[in-house]
Amino acid sequence: MQNPPHRTARKIKKILGIDPGIANTGYGVVEAHANRLVSRGYGNIRTSPKTASELRLKHIYDTVTHLITKFAIESIVLEDIFFSKNISSAFVVGEVKGIVKLAAANADCSVTVYTPTQVKQAVVGYGKATKSQMEKMTQALLKLKEPPRPDHAADALALALCHARSYKVLQRRDKYMQS
Amino acid sequence: MQNPPHRTARKIKKILGIDPGIANTGYGVVEAHANRLVSRGYGNIRTSPKTASELRLKHIYDTVTHLITKFAIESIVLEDIFFSKNISSAFVVGEVKGIVKLAAANADCSVTVYTPTQVKQAVVGYGKATKSQMEKMTQALLKLKEPPRPDHAADALALALCHARSYKVLQRRDKYMQS
Repeated sequence: MQNPPHRTARKIKKILGIDPGIANTGYGVVEAHANRLVSRGYGNIRTSPKTASELRLKHIYDTVTHLITKFAIESIVLEDIFFSKNISSAFVVGEVKGIVKLAAANADCSVTVYTPTQVKQAVVGYGKATKSQMEKMTQALLKLKEPPRPDHAADALALALCHARSYKVLQRRDKYMQS
Repeated sequence: MQNPPHRTARKIKKILGIDPGIANTGYGVVEAHANRLVSRGYGNIRTSPKTASELRLKHIYDTVTHLITKFAIESIVLEDIFFSKNISSAFVVGEVKGIVKLAAANADCSVTVYTPTQVKQAVVGYGKATKSQMEKMTQALLKLKEPPRPDHAADALALALCHARSYKVLQRRDKYMQS
């Protein structure tokens, strides 16, 4: 199977990981260069429970759109969640996922989802890795001075890392298939 | 308690009811005049399961935004759902609710949610009304030639009707309070 040449020709891939939540949406920006992974920033989009939900969603949408433009993002990465505290919190997290996907579609970004096991496997090499192991590996792989905080940002960075590493595996496979 | 004068001064209120779903999103447009309720249209926004979910959401978002502009909508009405077949379908319906709320926020529309019981109470006068009773009353109240179809559009029209009738009750209360 031959892949289109742009897949191998492009040297840097710009990835935005998002951990969606109505009160806290974590984000992490990772650049996948040919031989290294670089964090371009991470953080948390907060909204107040005193604000109407449609305005909270608009704030998250506007911030994600701003991040896509600022970092020239090509890929958005989300977690493929199938569990939730309860149905009503699933509806709420779904609302945030929806507007993040829409921000991606409106900016011509791809959307990729990974299961929690895939993220752990890609970052730590072990699908049942602990939160602490994940943080240490994220910090090490991105050469961060301190562990990423808060948790939502750390989760978002790990998602971006997972996609970056999967992308690099694909790059290597393409190179092998073409040689 | 005195309400601001614009609440009573405005004669026509334009309402868009939405029944969200990733494959079928029903919509219904109702105008609440001083002494009658008028349907301006209803239908179903369909998307294909063969299309990526972010593009399906974008299609629904663009269509809802178009409806808001076309009918000069001021209020969007959604159902306050707390049940679902399963968690994963709650996430998906949530995604559609999220982009509908965003469309409202981006167009400065208000968003109101009603429980299924409130909708039945407002349309039929009985919180445990059947689907068939709801359809007949929706048809009668809006003087439609035939029962609204498909089901998603009927549900969306009923939501808009519920809001229109609640609004008219408020109008009457305002008038009474000011007299």
